[in-house]
Amino acid sequence: MTNFDLYNPVNYVFGKGQIAKLSELVPNNVKILLTYGGGSIFKNGVYDQVKAALPTAEIIEFSGIEPNPRFETLMKAVQIIREQNIGFILAVGGGSVIDGTKFISAAVNYKGDEADILRKRILFKDVNEVVPFGTVLTLPATGSEMNSGAVVSIEATQEKLTLGGAALFPKFSIVDPTVIQSLPKRQLQNGVVDAFTHVMEQYLTYTHDALLQDRIAESILQTLIEIGPGVVENPTDYKLASNFVWSATMALNGLIQKGVPSDWATHMIGHELTALYEIDHARTLAIIGPNLYRVMFDSKKEKLAQYGQRVWNLTGASTEEIAEKAIEKTVEFLHTMGMKTKLSENAEAIEKTADIVVQRFEERGWLAMGERQNITLDKVREIVEMSY
Amino acid sequence: MTNFDLYNPVNYVFGKGQIAKLSELVPNNVKILLTYGGGSIFKNGVYDQVKAALPTAEIIEFSGIEPNPRFETLMKAVQIIREQNIGFILAVGGGSVIDGTKFISAAVNYKGDEADILRKRILFKDVNEVVPFGTVLTLPATGSEMNSGAVVSIEATQEKLTLGGAALFPKFSIVDPTVIQSLPKRQLQNGVVDAFTHVMEQYLTYTHDALLQDRIAESILQTLIEIGPGVVENPTDYKLASNFVWSATMALNGLIQKGVPSDWATHMIGHELTALYEIDHARTLAIIGPNLYRVMFDSKKEKLAQYGQRVWNLTGASTEEIAEKAIEKTVEFLHTMGMKTKLSENAEAIEKTADIVVQRFEERGWLAMGERQNITLDKVREIVEMSY
Repeated sequence: MTNFDLYNPVNYVFGKGQIAKLSELVPNNVKILLTYGGGSIFKNGVYDQVKAALPTAEIIEFSGIEPNPRFETLMKAVQIIREQNIGFILAVGGGSVIDGTKFISAAVNYKGDEADILRKRILFKDVNEVVPFGTVLTLPATGSEMNSGAVVSIEATQEKLTLGGAALFPKFSIVDPTVIQSLPKRQLQNGVVDAFTHVMEQYLTYTHDALLQDRIAESILQTLIEIGPGVVENPTDYKLASNFVWSATMALNGLIQKGVPSDWATHMIGHELTALYEIDHARTLAIIGPNLYRVMFDSKKEKLAQYGQRVWNLTGASTEEIAEKAIEKTVEFLHTMGMKTKLSENAEAIEKTADIVVQRFEERGWLAMGERQNITLDKVREIVEMSY
Repeated sequence: MTNFDLYNPVNYVFGKGQIAKLSELVPNNVKILLTYGGGSIFKNGVYDQVKAALPTAEIIEFSGIEPNPRFETLMKAVQIIREQNIGFILAVGGGSVIDGTKFISAAVNYKGDEADILRKRILFKDVNEVVPFGTVLTLPATGSEMNSGAVVSIEATQEKLTLGGAALFPKFSIVDPTVIQSLPKRQLQNGVVDAFTHVMEQYLTYTHDALLQDRIAESILQTLIEIGPGVVENPTDYKLASNFVWSATMALNGLIQKGVPSDWATHMIGHELTALYEIDHARTLAIIGPNLYRVMFDSKKEKLAQYGQRVWNLTGASTEEIAEKAIEKTVEFLHTMGMKTKLSENAEAIEKTADIVVQRFEERGWLAMGERQNITLDKVREIVEMSY
């Protein structure tokens, strides 16, 4: 087990009816910027619940944070905060709204070109430098409600980049599993697959000595496999909904990455597919993940076999056989979750994709990735081409 | 899954050589009270590491916090802090030193009879009311390094009582698994069994819908079973040591209790055995736990069977059969861990124990306990008598 620091000060408030607790959680002496996306919070009743919980608060609204939130959009909110003396941000939405809000929180007091926050991967450590914020989650998947990281795209240059730092944990996050009832099936499918892949990125590496972390990662995978197919059909089933939402948080709240290697190349490649073709984030992971396991088979086969045995109860004559079966089981699960695992099933005119992805990685100096830094650009090309 | 709030702001710093980070973690502008126990920190080198990390700090030492820390002892430290304008407490020790330090932290500014903190179960929510403290763990078992609860005994009345509240989380905890190398085998055995029973208290209740929490609890149990027998023989093996220490923290840092029922009657009864006979805390749990499962069999058999199947890979013709085997497996494991599971093997003149325990519970108005509040005083009597 490698050394680690575990610090996660988010006040995570989980369950039915918890949005009413906003009145205790939001500071009552400051102007609030309410950030949200395209208006789904009006349809699912969350906007009304938020307003009912904060009847006397001075709230300015900022809507229109898009899926894969854009730097250009978020900078408009930064301007509003700078001009209007706002002291707290309340993000109401899914991972995109929360990620976007983290960028807003960080950018308000940043001296210099705010795009550098993303391009230079500035870390925000001091809570006094950022604008405090809380969240009300409406779409589980990214774990953003309980971590300090975010992904933001720069539209002008089609870059999808990250930011983070200990100052960017939400002060609180309210997570009411009943909010998923009004989500389209496609978004529920995406949420399960996104959470599943988050665990795989931190787990499916090589065998190591961090026994408990492996078992906890397997616990989340098993739970998502158990409830995933059901929850997309019956999101009103509270048993399914609550386990889904809690698993999605636990998949990326930092716990399972402590003391272990992680991969994240599926995300790095997947982000490019979203930037190029606007394919839903989770669907890019379903396209890339299994092919990455195939191309990196020699490097990952021991862990694939452990995963196959413990998560899928597979048996076989050899490590290789169980590992291969484990990849096929994963693809089956992704299909069950409504994913189309070929790029050509998700976008058109894809023939130059591998060239473009490799070129972009080259331009950024990303010459190798993965838990062993052995996913070279040749391997990236092979993975993407196998995904056509 | 029941509603829950998960809030744990401890900065948990884990791994080899991490004690050196004290220089960054301890506030550098205040006088520090260094609390510890009987002097083992001199033998295991931790005292020297602490002093080396804080060469210029103004440190006042308070030693002699005993196992099952006593109110009477701790009040002496409270007096020192009140008299000497101390701004931070650094607890260096195991669960007893950390628990004791939590009481000290809470009592300094408490207006009134400090024993009421324990007897009236006062909750401390406001960090401004307590003296901030950090910890350096030297004996894993209680999880106290990453939770806000504590157990303190009042010697005068032989009471063992609890305190807690969100203000009583350590600011940081440094957990270096190599510190266990110098522990006596008996303490290592106690640590594994204490952590194991902490999980059981929060897990072995009834079957419910919190699927992920059950699986995480099972992960900790499996890890402790896997590494427990080895770590007491080879505490210098870092793989075993690191998984042991991290499992002990995860067993009682609050995570696995979220959204689920919990029992804790084994601890409540066990505390009385410690108060009466000074039996090591963990050893009282090993005496009581299995007999509690036997007496409450009808109430717990479904969960016992789940535990047997998932943790011990047991099979059987019926729920009852698997559940019974699961209890026997647990007893075998406790014996492997060096526990003597009969009260008469741990103390003398025990024949009135059940009467005394029941009488004490009656006096405190504790008439029923356990996850269903169906462990009545008659059941308590039966459990204790079965343990003779």
